[in-house]
Amino acid sequence: MSTHQHSYLAHDTKGDYLKRLRRIEGQARGLQRMVEEEQYCIDILTQVSAMTKALQAVSLSLLDEHLGHCVLEAARAGGPEAEEKLKEASDAIARLVRS
Amino acid sequence: MSTHQHSYLAHDTKGDYLKRLRRIEGQARGLQRMVEEEQYCIDILTQVSAMTKALQAVSLSLLDEHLGHCVLEAARAGGPEAEEKLKEASDAIARLVRS
Amino acid sequence: MSTHQHSYLAHDTKGDYLKRLRRIEGQARGLQRMVEEEQYCIDILTQVSAMTKALQAVSLSLLDEHLGHCVLEAARAGGPEAEEKLKEASDAIARLVRS
Amino acid sequence: MSTHQHSYLAHDTKGDYLKRLRRIEGQARGLQRMVEEEQYCIDILTQVSAMTKALQAVSLSLLDEHLGHCVLEAARAGGPEAEEKLKEASDAIARLVRS
Repeated sequence: MSTHQHSYLAHDTKGDYLKRLRRIEGQARGLQRMVEEEQYCIDILTQVSAMTKALQAVSLSLLDEHLGHCVLEAARAGGPEAEEKLKEASDAIARLVRS
Repeated sequence: MSTHQHSYLAHDTKGDYLKRLRRIEGQARGLQRMVEEEQYCIDILTQVSAMTKALQAVSLSLLDEHLGHCVLEAARAGGPEAEEKLKEASDAIARLVRS
Repeated sequence: MSTHQHSYLAHDTKGDYLKRLRRIEGQARGLQRMVEEEQYCIDILTQVSAMTKALQAVSLSLLDEHLGHCVLEAARAGGPEAEEKLKEASDAIARLVRS
Repeated sequence: MSTHQHSYLAHDTKGDYLKRLRRIEGQARGLQRMVEEEQYCIDILTQVSAMTKALQAVSLSLLDEHLGHCVLEAARAGGPEAEEKLKEASDAIARLVRS
């Protein structure tokens, strides 16, 4: 695997992402409990929205880090890889905007 | 708690929601593993988008069920509760659209 | 055309929608001017986001009105039309959430 | 105004954006006609969704162009401007994702 296939998550932010994803996993478990206990739909929906927002925030942070590391680095290096990295980032942004 | 505060999840769909939420919980765990192993950002982002879409589909199903049960029932009963239920559903839709 | 195919826009809200849509039309013209004058991409994007939010707010108002009139009315009347109206509203909500 | 405040819309794509925005302006006028004629809410909503999608596609194209020109250029030049450009692009992406 070429080096540019590496994630450029700094050591610090890695721990932060893990914490956020564990909280999101907990939200998924909380939702199961709410469904199990047949809680009110609107309350379940409110929780789903909160979880979706938390996931979206993770995406935006990941994308920022990706642009600030991989994409900038490729841009500096130049050549076809810069183009390719940008195309890849654009596609990821489009998926995010549409999801 | 009044009866209308109950979730109107049919027995069948309840199992279906639990299955979908367990899969989403699994996706959250998979994402932690990807971050742990420092996988490529774009691959992580693709997984986050898939998980967001799965959550969104759960929201839409829950909302459908809510409209088809609670809201219709309140509509038939009439009175201020119909208004209130509708307002509540509208707010949930707005949160969904904006999340 | 059957009566339920009518828009249930109250007289007052009709004027309000027209005003909002005219403002949105003006935003589309403003964007053309910005592109024509080669203004800064980020400033253009900010305007596109504002316009998208304005459109989304129109959707949510229309949907509220639709749920509060057509759907409630069909619910009270009962029968297959209630089901059909709900399905139609659900599909519109899904399009909104995904757009 | 410094040169980097310029839009990097290529001559060709400028014409394309203008064409797309004129079509969007036409959609805004079409919607006013639909409201004026009291057409069915769901049909109006379908048109609003189509228009929102068209706007979103314009945003994504603009963002692509911005990343591929301004941001890459700033990245190559390096220094604080690269950081600043990236922050600006990230904020625009966040606004897009949330709108």
